[in-house]
Amino acid sequence: MEGEPTLRLRIFNLNCWAIRYLSKRRRQRVRLLGDTLRQEGFDLVLLQEVWSEQDYSELKVKLAGSYPFSHYFRSGVIGSGLCVFSRFPILDMLLYQYSLNGYPYMLQHGDWFCGKSVGLVGFAGSRAGVRAPLLSLSLQLHAEYCRDKDAYLPHRLVQAWELAQFIRHTSKAADVVLLGGDLNMHPEDVGIRLLRGWTGLQDAFAEAMHFEGCKNGCTLVPDNCFTDKSELLPFPLGIRIDYILYKAISSFTVKCEELKTTTGRAPGVDIPFSDHEAVMATLHIQRQGQPAGATLGTADPALADVVTEARAEVGAGLRAARQQRHSSGRMAVLALLLLLLQAAAALAALAGLGAEQPFPKLSFCLLAFLALGVLVLATGLHLFHTMEVKMLHGTEDQMWMVLRALQERP
Amino acid sequence: MEGEPTLRLRIFNLNCWAIRYLSKRRRQRVRLLGDTLRQEGFDLVLLQEVWSEQDYSELKVKLAGSYPFSHYFRSGVIGSGLCVFSRFPILDMLLYQYSLNGYPYMLQHGDWFCGKSVGLVGFAGSRAGVRAPLLSLSLQLHAEYCRDKDAYLPHRLVQAWELAQFIRHTSKAADVVLLGGDLNMHPEDVGIRLLRGWTGLQDAFAEAMHFEGCKNGCTLVPDNCFTDKSELLPFPLGIRIDYILYKAISSFTVKCEELKTTTGRAPGVDIPFSDHEAVMATLHIQRQGQPAGATLGTADPALADVVTEARAEVGAGLRAARQQRHSSGRMAVLALLLLLLQAAAALAALAGLGAEQPFPKLSFCLLAFLALGVLVLATGLHLFHTMEVKMLHGTEDQMWMVLRALQERP
Repeated sequence: MEGEPTLRLRIFNLNCWAIRYLSKRRRQRVRLLGDTLRQEGFDLVLLQEVWSEQDYSELKVKLAGSYPFSHYFRSGVIGSGLCVFSRFPILDMLLYQYSLNGYPYMLQHGDWFCGKSVGLVGFAGSRAGVRAPLLSLSLQLHAEYCRDKDAYLPHRLVQAWELAQFIRHTSKAADVVLLGGDLNMHPEDVGIRLLRGWTGLQDAFAEAMHFEGCKNGCTLVPDNCFTDKSELLPFPLGIRIDYILYKAISSFTVKCEELKTTTGRAPGVDIPFSDHEAVMATLHIQRQGQPAGATLGTADPALADVVTEARAEVGAGLRAARQQRHSSGRMAVLALLLLLLQAAAALAALAGLGAEQPFPKLSFCLLAFLALGVLVLATGLHLFHTMEVKMLHGTEDQMWMVLRALQERP
Repeated sequence: MEGEPTLRLRIFNLNCWAIRYLSKRRRQRVRLLGDTLRQEGFDLVLLQEVWSEQDYSELKVKLAGSYPFSHYFRSGVIGSGLCVFSRFPILDMLLYQYSLNGYPYMLQHGDWFCGKSVGLVGFAGSRAGVRAPLLSLSLQLHAEYCRDKDAYLPHRLVQAWELAQFIRHTSKAADVVLLGGDLNMHPEDVGIRLLRGWTGLQDAFAEAMHFEGCKNGCTLVPDNCFTDKSELLPFPLGIRIDYILYKAISSFTVKCEELKTTTGRAPGVDIPFSDHEAVMATLHIQRQGQPAGATLGTADPALADVVTEARAEVGAGLRAARQQRHSSGRMAVLALLLLLLQAAAALAALAGLGAEQPFPKLSFCLLAFLALGVLVLATGLHLFHTMEVKMLHGTEDQMWMVLRALQERP
């Protein structure tokens, strides 16, 4: 087996933080990224938060020579921000948008408007006699704004679950699955354990034979001039939320020869590529003597515990969503009642029943408009939280079915 | 090969038209459906438009003996309406919600609120020595309200494309794919040709060795007492929009022994199950000597023409969506200008610059509220149409990449 030819694959992953008008020194950083990628010649580049199609187009033109194949995934109001550049031909692509992604009224967080998704691209990785259908995923999950009281945890868990299900269903005929992205979760978080446990993906940082970069593989570090220092106060070394994960499915083995991260700045210059560090992995893909017997990552006996833990969090989210659905529904009914009451009063005044109208016209109209506004808003919220309840309930159900299957298995 | 054991699979598909408070004689029809399914003992039952979870729960209880495995797919405000009952254990499930599904402001059509989706369920069909991983999909696409001027055609084509991509990506490791659903398209429509051409799915009606039911396999027929007769005026025999499609992927062959539809009423009683006719297929699944060489339906030389035709329709939809995005954006800007103008006038009046306020207070306030209402509404519409443009553009792009690949192939 030692003599079998090997496919050596170099992967680059970065959350680019390229929001038009908001991200600092965006154009300069995108230019720098393009130059570096062109020089370095990776095999596969997975980018997130490329919100401007113009940035993508510029990168595409610049990288046309070294990465002839690329794809930009469009979704949501602003976009998915996901794109892929590749040295290998892209055979097929699919975008899966998570069913839950924050709240439209949380404008300051804005995740809802991004249409966060996972973009899947199928390649035929081929070199030195090895030809492996590769499946590569670029993705971003909902951000964490407050770790102690994380209101978005149930949504992020639904996303992690949907991502895992998506990988299980789409990867069955691939030889190797590669995932790069900003998961917005620390390595020990329940969402990561769920994703890895349920899909069998391996963490390049944990498996790497050689590592070079920020301590503990962190990708949000205080040394980076763009990171929010207050966010990193409880974590003086930084946190690791950007990952390259992989797994071999059929008759291949994958080994991570080397993992690198940038360390607060791009190589050879003064500014970093982004507020996140780039993650770069060198993988060895080798054909095995015989099929490994497609494991889908359900071998871990602790998996049932992880699914139980995740299900409890989703259940807590479900209760909160039901409460919000109830509150907004009640508010809508109250506004409707007020409107009806006003209509009755106005009709009575018109019919001459009341001697005089009890309210001044102006206040009466203002009140009616206010009630109408509350009615529209509360109805919208009620519909939104109804959808949220549906999706959380559906995920809880699916987890329960999986738990039952895990427990029935010997 | 003749001696190889065969898996005989009986499938039932129905759009149940079970909308709470709106569908006529719903409870009676659901009871009737449950009784019939219990007596008939199909292997697999695919239902659409079961909008009430209570109906699903009642069916589940009634069918627990003959169909021990079932799943209800939750999504959208009202739900996806999809559910599956099966004699075989369900191994896995995945819900894919189409990225476009009509307009939230088209309340009279209501498709947007349904969260239309495709629900995928993985089975291990096993009997008489044949064991085949089956993938079964239950789905519904956007309804057609006016065939001559079909404003929803681009959305339905995006759905058909996403469905085809979803099937291509999830079915690679299955032995047999079964799809049952209300596609809301006539057999010769571009969406059906696209779906069948790009996935290689076969139409049970066209392939059936024996057929029994409504002429031409129609599933919306004038004989059904619940159908809208005016809708069927141009089609006196009815139309066929409910399908069972299938394909074998690996070392199996599938043959359709028999296809049946109900004929305007349920067997042995006076009322039909629904306003649609049920479609029932008997399939023979047999193991072949050697793998068929997984074709994904790209063998058809006319496929490029179909993709080109579909892409032109999506392009037309894209232009219309851009126009609507532009109009709503302009309206929002106008409303904002009016509000600013009013604010300036009010400030000027407060500062005592104008001798007297030129408008009566009431009209002034009403106008401000109107402008605010228009601003909120137009902004919402602008965001919605921006998303629509993103998704139509993304689909157009994907189709273009596929076209290029098709043309490059010999």
